[in-house]
Amino acid sequence: MPDARRYFDLPSPFAFKRGGALVGATLAYETWGTLDDARGNAVFILTGLSPSAHAASNAEDPSPGWWEDMIGPGKYIDTNRWFVICANTLGSCKGSTGPASTNPATGELYRLDFPDLTLEDVANASFALVRGLGIERLACLIGNSMGGMSALAYLVQHAGSTRSHISISTAPQAQPFAIAIRSLQREAIRLDPNWKLGHYDDAHYPEAGMSIARKLGVITYRSAMEWVGRFARIRLDSGEREEEPFAVEFQIESYLAGHARRFVRSFDPNSYLYLSRASDWFDIGEYAGGNVARALAAIHLERACVIGVSTDILFPLTQQQQIADGLRTGGAEVDFVALDSPQGHDSFLVDISRFGEAVARLLASLQGMPIK
Amino acid sequence: MPDARRYFDLPSPFAFKRGGALVGATLAYETWGTLDDARGNAVFILTGLSPSAHAASNAEDPSPGWWEDMIGPGKYIDTNRWFVICANTLGSCKGSTGPASTNPATGELYRLDFPDLTLEDVANASFALVRGLGIERLACLIGNSMGGMSALAYLVQHAGSTRSHISISTAPQAQPFAIAIRSLQREAIRLDPNWKLGHYDDAHYPEAGMSIARKLGVITYRSAMEWVGRFARIRLDSGEREEEPFAVEFQIESYLAGHARRFVRSFDPNSYLYLSRASDWFDIGEYAGGNVARALAAIHLERACVIGVSTDILFPLTQQQQIADGLRTGGAEVDFVALDSPQGHDSFLVDISRFGEAVARLLASLQGMPIK
Repeated sequence: MPDARRYFDLPSPFAFKRGGALVGATLAYETWGTLDDARGNAVFILTGLSPSAHAASNAEDPSPGWWEDMIGPGKYIDTNRWFVICANTLGSCKGSTGPASTNPATGELYRLDFPDLTLEDVANASFALVRGLGIERLACLIGNSMGGMSALAYLVQHAGSTRSHISISTAPQAQPFAIAIRSLQREAIRLDPNWKLGHYDDAHYPEAGMSIARKLGVITYRSAMEWVGRFARIRLDSGEREEEPFAVEFQIESYLAGHARRFVRSFDPNSYLYLSRASDWFDIGEYAGGNVARALAAIHLERACVIGVSTDILFPLTQQQQIADGLRTGGAEVDFVALDSPQGHDSFLVDISRFGEAVARLLASLQGMPIK
Repeated sequence: MPDARRYFDLPSPFAFKRGGALVGATLAYETWGTLDDARGNAVFILTGLSPSAHAASNAEDPSPGWWEDMIGPGKYIDTNRWFVICANTLGSCKGSTGPASTNPATGELYRLDFPDLTLEDVANASFALVRGLGIERLACLIGNSMGGMSALAYLVQHAGSTRSHISISTAPQAQPFAIAIRSLQREAIRLDPNWKLGHYDDAHYPEAGMSIARKLGVITYRSAMEWVGRFARIRLDSGEREEEPFAVEFQIESYLAGHARRFVRSFDPNSYLYLSRASDWFDIGEYAGGNVARALAAIHLERACVIGVSTDILFPLTQQQQIADGLRTGGAEVDFVALDSPQGHDSFLVDISRFGEAVARLLASLQGMPIK
């Protein structure tokens, strides 16, 4: 299988915010485009909970990435101009060190011996990678969803490390609705008898718990409005239905089942638990005595673009407005873009043209072109 | 324990819409107030998925009911004027015949041998009870949540049976977002190893599945906005926390846990599955070649009051508007009440004063007082 990943050795030991440290840990990352001589054209992307570093196709791996239509030569994030980096999140399972990696101290998998992970640790690992690539200052730090929280953790901890920021469908702190959803996803995994306090294996795998967690995720990532138009009350053909009692009957149910099927074995359940909890823990207010607005205003950027979607129930538009206001108070010229894309939280993966326009506008402004 | 329930013997056999029939089935119900000589002051309440017939305290059972502040002498539904009836839903487990009842043909519990239940069956059982009480025509039929769908099933099947209707936070057809949520709740129960295709017992009970189902229910019954104000990011005291990995930490999580704890053993899991699926199946459009508006317009009422809440994600306001428009086209004088209560779908149980005013206004208009 083609693989474009490179591996960056994190400083060792790599200490975590809440205690504990990793020895010999690595981050998997991919790049697109060329770093210019002034090292001034770097764009770093922090991802949501589950994506890999493969944000787009490249020479070594021509398979489409998770933001394929956004990144590439002549695309919204134009790799003819920008040197783009995307890392797999620390604690994930797509090449970076996480709970499914081997603990060099024991020779066993970390599982729940992995230290308590926070998004600050995710941010700090990414910062180490950026510095390791010889980049003093990013042209732009982009964060989507959980990656948007990681980006705020990056900015609040590393003043002056970034000229501009694109914040997409995220939160300055986890709110109770999102915590409730994530807590329930974790509970579904933890209650699966195969989870065994993290000691599952391929033969005894928390399939049911992961399936429920993923389906609940998909329900909150999209929107009721989109589904009325897309699925309405269309039923499966009788040939597609299973015989068991209360089996799925509507297309919407089989859509969720398909999402779960593709996800369950491709993402490590312990990684899921760690990253999910890290999202609940995130609160930028901690950096200003509990005051979110003040913590955001302490971030000083040249420019920022904050994009949100009115149909997003997980990261509501009010939280995007909060980020935009805070960064503006901190001195950034802020482009706040409220979209009414029907696809809910996932819109940034689907409604590429509208997100792309806003992203491209910010990037263009960095090259002396005005924000239109 | 005080008990105000009476039991009505349904016609036997009682045939179901999708086939099958019950022999010797009963509905548990309670009443408040006195039926007048003309039998013209009857108000019937169809409930949501889980409530019992005990909507309010009465002489035989002084414990508070689930709509205690709404029903009683001098209250919004004034039992000095109205004869109020509330039945436990057919298929439920609070006294009416359901999957947890004994099948007289076998002497065993029905479990999954209970016939496929629809809300039309729920409606028809309620209609039989109303007729059995000697009432030709209800003054008002009230339906909340799932009960609102049952009420539409009642009205569409029994023309002329009701003068007026109060429709609260419900749907003329199940939409894909609500189907997705309910399907996932059912899956959590079905995947619980203790469910055993319905053959659980008290010692081996699908506790985990029911807990997930209930928590997901509560998440969709309330609103993100309410929880920001109510729980924010408040954490439990360390003494309240469990030691296990990924244990609950935030108040919102313990709030959900409390709801689950109170529900899990008090509601029959098979009943839950049957009623949940019946909700997915409901589509009033079936009565007019798939056209919801036309099906609603075929219902002829004197008056209707349709109440919905902008923060309800399970039964969105657009669906309440659809019901109001349809009933108006059918000739009813309709009072459409869109509230911005913060408590989401559950507002009708919490924001009693605003719901009560609308309910009282409709009832007053039946006695010749105008809808204000």
